[in-house]
Amino acid sequence: MNPPKTDARRRHDPSVRGFASDNYAGVHPEVLAALALANGGHQVAYGEDVYTEHLQQVVRGHFGATAEAYPVFNGTGANVVALQAVTDRWGAVICAESAHINTDEGGAPEQVAGIKLLTVPTPDGKLTPELIDRQAFGFDDEHRAMPQVVSITQSTELGTVYTPDEIRAICDHAHAHGLTVHLDGSRLGNAAASLDVPMRAFTNAAGVDLLSLGGTKNGAMYGEAVVVINHERVRRMKHLRKTSMQLASKMRFVSVQLEALLAKDLWLRNARHANEMARRLAEGVRAVDGVEILHPVQSNAVFARLPHAVTERLQKRFRFYFWDEAAGDVRWMCAYDTSEDDVDAFVAAVKEEMASR
Amino acid sequence: MNPPKTDARRRHDPSVRGFASDNYAGVHPEVLAALALANGGHQVAYGEDVYTEHLQQVVRGHFGATAEAYPVFNGTGANVVALQAVTDRWGAVICAESAHINTDEGGAPEQVAGIKLLTVPTPDGKLTPELIDRQAFGFDDEHRAMPQVVSITQSTELGTVYTPDEIRAICDHAHAHGLTVHLDGSRLGNAAASLDVPMRAFTNAAGVDLLSLGGTKNGAMYGEAVVVINHERVRRMKHLRKTSMQLASKMRFVSVQLEALLAKDLWLRNARHANEMARRLAEGVRAVDGVEILHPVQSNAVFARLPHAVTERLQKRFRFYFWDEAAGDVRWMCAYDTSEDDVDAFVAAVKEEMASR
Amino acid sequence: MNPPKTDARRRHDPSVRGFASDNYAGVHPEVLAALALANGGHQVAYGEDVYTEHLQQVVRGHFGATAEAYPVFNGTGANVVALQAVTDRWGAVICAESAHINTDEGGAPEQVAGIKLLTVPTPDGKLTPELIDRQAFGFDDEHRAMPQVVSITQSTELGTVYTPDEIRAICDHAHAHGLTVHLDGSRLGNAAASLDVPMRAFTNAAGVDLLSLGGTKNGAMYGEAVVVINHERVRRMKHLRKTSMQLASKMRFVSVQLEALLAKDLWLRNARHANEMARRLAEGVRAVDGVEILHPVQSNAVFARLPHAVTERLQKRFRFYFWDEAAGDVRWMCAYDTSEDDVDAFVAAVKEEMASR
Amino acid sequence: MNPPKTDARRRHDPSVRGFASDNYAGVHPEVLAALALANGGHQVAYGEDVYTEHLQQVVRGHFGATAEAYPVFNGTGANVVALQAVTDRWGAVICAESAHINTDEGGAPEQVAGIKLLTVPTPDGKLTPELIDRQAFGFDDEHRAMPQVVSITQSTELGTVYTPDEIRAICDHAHAHGLTVHLDGSRLGNAAASLDVPMRAFTNAAGVDLLSLGGTKNGAMYGEAVVVINHERVRRMKHLRKTSMQLASKMRFVSVQLEALLAKDLWLRNARHANEMARRLAEGVRAVDGVEILHPVQSNAVFARLPHAVTERLQKRFRFYFWDEAAGDVRWMCAYDTSEDDVDAFVAAVKEEMASR
Repeated sequence: MNPPKTDARRRHDPSVRGFASDNYAGVHPEVLAALALANGGHQVAYGEDVYTEHLQQVVRGHFGATAEAYPVFNGTGANVVALQAVTDRWGAVICAESAHINTDEGGAPEQVAGIKLLTVPTPDGKLTPELIDRQAFGFDDEHRAMPQVVSITQSTELGTVYTPDEIRAICDHAHAHGLTVHLDGSRLGNAAASLDVPMRAFTNAAGVDLLSLGGTKNGAMYGEAVVVINHERVRRMKHLRKTSMQLASKMRFVSVQLEALLAKDLWLRNARHANEMARRLAEGVRAVDGVEILHPVQSNAVFARLPHAVTERLQKRFRFYFWDEAAGDVRWMCAYDTSEDDVDAFVAAVKEEMASR
Repeated sequence: MNPPKTDARRRHDPSVRGFASDNYAGVHPEVLAALALANGGHQVAYGEDVYTEHLQQVVRGHFGATAEAYPVFNGTGANVVALQAVTDRWGAVICAESAHINTDEGGAPEQVAGIKLLTVPTPDGKLTPELIDRQAFGFDDEHRAMPQVVSITQSTELGTVYTPDEIRAICDHAHAHGLTVHLDGSRLGNAAASLDVPMRAFTNAAGVDLLSLGGTKNGAMYGEAVVVINHERVRRMKHLRKTSMQLASKMRFVSVQLEALLAKDLWLRNARHANEMARRLAEGVRAVDGVEILHPVQSNAVFARLPHAVTERLQKRFRFYFWDEAAGDVRWMCAYDTSEDDVDAFVAAVKEEMASR
Repeated sequence: MNPPKTDARRRHDPSVRGFASDNYAGVHPEVLAALALANGGHQVAYGEDVYTEHLQQVVRGHFGATAEAYPVFNGTGANVVALQAVTDRWGAVICAESAHINTDEGGAPEQVAGIKLLTVPTPDGKLTPELIDRQAFGFDDEHRAMPQVVSITQSTELGTVYTPDEIRAICDHAHAHGLTVHLDGSRLGNAAASLDVPMRAFTNAAGVDLLSLGGTKNGAMYGEAVVVINHERVRRMKHLRKTSMQLASKMRFVSVQLEALLAKDLWLRNARHANEMARRLAEGVRAVDGVEILHPVQSNAVFARLPHAVTERLQKRFRFYFWDEAAGDVRWMCAYDTSEDDVDAFVAAVKEEMASR
Repeated sequence: MNPPKTDARRRHDPSVRGFASDNYAGVHPEVLAALALANGGHQVAYGEDVYTEHLQQVVRGHFGATAEAYPVFNGTGANVVALQAVTDRWGAVICAESAHINTDEGGAPEQVAGIKLLTVPTPDGKLTPELIDRQAFGFDDEHRAMPQVVSITQSTELGTVYTPDEIRAICDHAHAHGLTVHLDGSRLGNAAASLDVPMRAFTNAAGVDLLSLGGTKNGAMYGEAVVVINHERVRRMKHLRKTSMQLASKMRFVSVQLEALLAKDLWLRNARHANEMARRLAEGVRAVDGVEILHPVQSNAVFARLPHAVTERLQKRFRFYFWDEAAGDVRWMCAYDTSEDDVDAFVAAVKEEMASR
């Protein structure tokens, strides 16, 4: 499948990997092969193709008989389409202050969809019924945007993972207040791998109404899906996907990637490997004096606090980002293609730079 | 590159092609090869990769030294991002009634961007300075959405093509009124092939300020770009692409597809071939008594009027769409992969069904 | 009630009236007296006051037992709140090309509410079932904004009036297609006066689902109401009025104005008088050679075509507006306070200026 | 001016006043007289009248030679129009978590204008340069809505008042970061009365770029204005007022109210009186054992904490609202028409209910 490494048109070194983001990785070879397989001939555009049709079966296998997948381009798109489908013009979404929809989507929920986010500070990126209650009030008061949805992230932006019971408690609490539960699952596989349970255990089985299912960070080239579980609470996904500019004309190529990941265990192998690499990284670095690991390392993210000068020297050797520059916190991500050697080399570098303080 | 045709995971027959849409086609093998080439290793996400960097050179080669490309996912995305970048909250866009932004984007310009479209009926999908004047007034009247942009399509939704002089006249007229000119070029290559001039002849050289450059219909899997030519009139593309959910994390795979099409002559070969197939189809069908060809066949679209009963019988054999069901008008599209045999078989079918009336 | 005419703080001449707009008029003395009556003491803000409570009875007297009034500030506000309450994010509204919502609200429906307007050209400002059908299609096609509402204006922007039967036919047709019917009644009283029927005859009795009820042009200082008749089709007016910035804190003063107009026959007296003045004006001017009256004069508007030079000379003496400058069409409006002398003086002026051509 | 108290159409008791909201009050008699004065005859609609013209002089007298007033209907309208005029589609506004735009406008800034609010918790409703810095970052990062504006409230929602120096420090800091400063002045007069300085001292003289100037809570029937001071930072107020449904047709009646308040010292008398009544109330209640006054009483608001059971008994006698029900915090507002007797009776009631615990 791969062209000769000496091809002059290759503009990058495919042997270099880092810890800045799981979006820096490329496409898993099995996904690339599936794309080639779906090529050739004509297929009906905009979702009436056989690959999208088949994807529904695969998705129902994971998320239950009611599940229906709406393939989209990217994670912000999945979230914004999903949230529009469960809010009215006067609606608001309760989420953690650290939620991706609040901090990393350029204001798209507000700008494109006119949705107010009612945020709650959390210690670890995880909401609880009690934290939800800080914003779940005033449903009939027109002076306040009406809380209609609770949106949680699994695994969270801080690398932590909700247990199925925790999500069930949130869903029960939300539903008792008439709130719909959306789950941002851009790293859903990592959570399942971490918990060692099927994805259904903390989605449909726990009461989640709809979710954003990630593909890109799990090894796809592009492509996510909004998976609708509870159709009574979700409106006109089909139209909202289009008006939100997330309707792919050649949709077969989105669907076949998701199929390649989900039909067997590629999604799980990829997620499990990334998690393991994060664990290895955390263990390696935790042993270095002066480096603090900040949150439980439950998925493929490692948050650490280290001296500024050390971070800056490390960043000259490896690209990665501050999470909270003032505090000295950094984030290191592992991907499906991170190798043990990558981790070990990075840990060694941390040691070196800490030692040469 | 292609897997064995007997692969059980292939769910479709790659030898079947039709005339419903140029979006039904798959990916050109050279584009697929380029995707594989760009794979492997890590690249900075969100556009800081080497493929996106290189794309800028390629685009400047086509659209002049000031051109800057912003890769996006799809055509609706390209148009809505582009139009937001040249309108204010109180702004309006003048376009043909038949424009894709008016008829085929689910209301995205209005819904997502709050842009009012000021439409003008046209005989052939083409605006003129005179037609623009029907909406280009009331610039300082707050009771009217302020005209700020003229958006034209090249080639048009009716398969016609503006000459460079026609576009220059529009741009001069628009600029004299303080209006920015956007060109929706989802089939830009087809227009250039039809006119037998470089794309620059009717874009930067004619005064176009920014354009939506199509890749998908030209042989890509997904991916278009907004190309900004006149930066003085265009604001914050970078932010608008993100808030419009069109920022690809693994952008290298969008950029390398556009590079594969544009760096040499693949775009032109693909466009020229599709146009030739449309011409062949129009000529073949025009000879059939009772079938009327409706517009000049200047790109890869053929519009025809034929008896309803014939259309319905034909649609049982080939999928294609009514353009105006009441009038009996249909649209047939040719793609880069349409073969002469495809065309001849379809023409034969039209003859048969017309004969058996 | 009125202060001495010699009061130095009075900055205008209260004896001057013109024909530019029924919005140029002031407040009817009975309305001003009602405002004073409602003053003093404290009343619950935002609509829980006794005047707003009482208004509901008055409105039910006119529009049936299900009617509920939501007072708002102005006509654009009434329309935009109403249309939001009957459309979804993916929805569109079918209206006449000449509708106020399309031509005179600065793009507010699109800009503020993200609503696409599907417009139809009409000869006289009036929709019909046949004209509606030009846009009432594609309900399930996500590539098209979904038609959800028909909005008609009574009396129309061209001064014409729908009969109750015409509105019933529109409502029946719309409902058969699942469309809600909104009626923009900024001049509702003028229509009722013209038809000599109660307002209910062409609203609730004809099948209208909700309407914008005008007060300002009927003699109020400010204040309109959205009147909801069919609650099954209308959602969360209360919240939408607030998010649309149309919730008056001291609402008693909006409600008492509407009560003053509607509780007895002030609304009808005002409307009838304005209509009569328009008829007198039309008759006077029609007799002048070279002046053409353009539409049936059925309410308080007169549209005329006269030579440009004459219009310009007239405009130096009286302020009024071109309706279609290219065609030489002008609009003259009569208000509740237009006097016979005002009309006769204006007609005399038209004669003079036509004579001195 | 006032009709006989025995008028049967008067539906309320004008001698009853409470402490729930300064919006519960009616219209100051001098304002009502001004409305009557401006009545009669025709005046050009939509702002070209002589009262609106004259208002500009009055406003320049308060806010400097560059000041320009755009009359609007209400406070939410003023804020949303103002914020749109200083943000782009990708922009965000930094404000206190307790700001009216965040908590009391039904989500209008997000819903209508697509503006993301970047909120900061504050102890007393007041921002500082340091608090602003918690959100003033990432200006060029498209993953984050771009901070473009700092919005402060004077007097604040907690009844506190910024000194001129505090506002000047905020403006200097904001401008140094390229941020525009908006001041929500729905109770601007109360702040000036509290500080005993002209309004200019903490607006134009302190560097504020534009402000929402309140009229309704200061004794008007309805009507506020956006006052633009720094025209370089503010765009197309005229169009935004219209698209935001805040353009009054009979604008003379908005303008003459603001003139009545601002031309002489009515605004100051009203504000000063309300402040004095709040002080009297706070002093009276502070003396009651078991009642805690929560914030410095610097304007016309008193925040207190008292036992739930007492609050509930008090609310049976006087309508007022919880501010934070869980904490037992309540808000009492004084208006321009609150009398010493009103205050003394309320204090007595607090004493009684506290005593009978």
